[in-house]
Amino acid sequence: MSLRTIEWKNNGIKIIDQTRLPAEFRYLCLKDIKSLWHAIKELKVRGAPAIGAAAALGVYLGVKGFKKKDFASFQKELDQVIAYLASSRPTARNLFWGLERMRRTALEHRDTPVEGIKKILFKETQEIIEEDRRVCRMIGFWGSKLIKDKDTVLTVCNAGILATLDYGTALGVIYKAKEQGKRIKVFACETRPLLQGARLTVWELEKNNVDVTLICDNMAAAVMKSGRIDKVIVGADRIAANGDTANKIGTYSLAVLSRYHNIPFYVAAPFSTFDGAVNTGKDIPIEERCPGEIKELYFKRPIAASRTKVFNPAFDVTDHGLITAIITERGIIKPPFGENIKKVMSNNKI
Amino acid sequence: MSLRTIEWKNNGIKIIDQTRLPAEFRYLCLKDIKSLWHAIKELKVRGAPAIGAAAALGVYLGVKGFKKKDFASFQKELDQVIAYLASSRPTARNLFWGLERMRRTALEHRDTPVEGIKKILFKETQEIIEEDRRVCRMIGFWGSKLIKDKDTVLTVCNAGILATLDYGTALGVIYKAKEQGKRIKVFACETRPLLQGARLTVWELEKNNVDVTLICDNMAAAVMKSGRIDKVIVGADRIAANGDTANKIGTYSLAVLSRYHNIPFYVAAPFSTFDGAVNTGKDIPIEERCPGEIKELYFKRPIAASRTKVFNPAFDVTDHGLITAIITERGIIKPPFGENIKKVMSNNKI
Repeated sequence: MSLRTIEWKNNGIKIIDQTRLPAEFRYLCLKDIKSLWHAIKELKVRGAPAIGAAAALGVYLGVKGFKKKDFASFQKELDQVIAYLASSRPTARNLFWGLERMRRTALEHRDTPVEGIKKILFKETQEIIEEDRRVCRMIGFWGSKLIKDKDTVLTVCNAGILATLDYGTALGVIYKAKEQGKRIKVFACETRPLLQGARLTVWELEKNNVDVTLICDNMAAAVMKSGRIDKVIVGADRIAANGDTANKIGTYSLAVLSRYHNIPFYVAAPFSTFDGAVNTGKDIPIEERCPGEIKELYFKRPIAASRTKVFNPAFDVTDHGLITAIITERGIIKPPFGENIKKVMSNNKI
Repeated sequence: MSLRTIEWKNNGIKIIDQTRLPAEFRYLCLKDIKSLWHAIKELKVRGAPAIGAAAALGVYLGVKGFKKKDFASFQKELDQVIAYLASSRPTARNLFWGLERMRRTALEHRDTPVEGIKKILFKETQEIIEEDRRVCRMIGFWGSKLIKDKDTVLTVCNAGILATLDYGTALGVIYKAKEQGKRIKVFACETRPLLQGARLTVWELEKNNVDVTLICDNMAAAVMKSGRIDKVIVGADRIAANGDTANKIGTYSLAVLSRYHNIPFYVAAPFSTFDGAVNTGKDIPIEERCPGEIKELYFKRPIAASRTKVFNPAFDVTDHGLITAIITERGIIKPPFGENIKKVMSNNKI
């Protein structure tokens, strides 16, 4: 399946409206940064790497019409656009990574005329997109080495085509292993409250002829106990310096359950998800989303009273001690994570 | 709140249609055993103790109009009714317990005229209902001893008023502790796929002014990690001789997570849930329900394609080694469970 999750088209950011899948496949073209902000907030575009690229495109979208010619004014505008987009969601590192990269690119070319900087910024967005494609392929390459013929992999949320610019991180490992002729089965946790597992992961795996079985999140333990799961592979929204990993709510639960059942638990993520400035998972900000997501199911039908108290964290943190290895574009990082992440980040080598 | 989950009224079985809660509170009056069979199958009446009582009433409903006067014919009819009702759901022990108790009562009075046996059977149904009331109170009494002031308890599915003839098993412990003036908070797991936690537990706890917070099932681990949960208390559908406990899918997951976080994990259940004929959890039949429950959410709106493969076990088994204690009407049973369950079952004492 060849899909473009995000691209620049007709002077806007063209995305798939992921809130409508699987019932409806519809593209949206976002022509201003307010639309993009809402698309990110409402998960029309989601998945850490995709958010990073969308944010970078958003920076270009936000400044491309800027009229003044002095860099100081341009920079002020740029900073406002970046601050605005940065406020859309707090957890995924890639959002800030994409925004910072655009800011740095502009600053590096501060002596270029403003119109020239705009062109350079656009080029940077295309480079970010191309990079993510290569990164997904490399994560798939390294991760597929961990997969044996006839493995069954459990995953949560969506870390696939729809979450990246290519074939995904966690699902990239599966697609690559399948390309290599390995017979793989997948169990997909539906991923309440917004059902990215049921709606997105199952949808794209089925389109790519991967044998996938949908379960509710609370069934994962029983399926593990039955001996059907060989590996768990998940994506990541932010990885701290010590390897603690924030990812979709429910990931931590799977990590604990994997440990109990002696199942390897892998995180697959690009380096743009690593946050060296955050020492441990405790310092990763966890987004709390609106109660309606839980109380109204996915289709605005009530399952609890409007007054009902709800706790709705969008992410949780998996302690590095529960992670078997982190699959990156530069190879597989094994414990001790603090030391090995630092090595890989500085050396570009493992 | 004074609610009658099940009663005999107007020559039929009056139940609350639990599939319509919380949006709508509606009674149903079941006038034939086919309606009852479907009500059990479709979870209009659910919860192991409530199913046991409903099944007993169903036996009376099924034979009350029987015309012939010889016991042999009556017994044949009785056996057919019992076999039919027994086929509604496979896991909850109480269903079979209720049916067997009615059969035994009839056989004990085989020398009584058939019309007299019918009266005795009706009396037995009322005794079963009264017994369950006393049992809930005793479970509450014993269980409340485990609860401290300001405890926060996590639970799953619904083991409360709506699952029993009185104030519940797991929730009975909470109601009793609250009566004693203890300040208790509850976290309720929504309990996919059919959302008994969100729809029923939250509804009845709110009606009884218990401080309850609704979470998705996959959030339990993160909430435990945050230190907010002091105890986990769940109900049971069948308890094997060694203490292995079948309960709503997701219970096993909570037991593993409780162990990891050093949180006591309690099962609250009446003796009618114990099955001495089943040695371990491996021998408990686990109901697998229709895929639509997962794929169509609760309101028949699709979240996955109709062709999507689904695994939908309604229950799972929690190994006795993960259970801190079992709260029964006869007291609190601690490990070693095999030995102690046997003692309590034979001696009527701990």
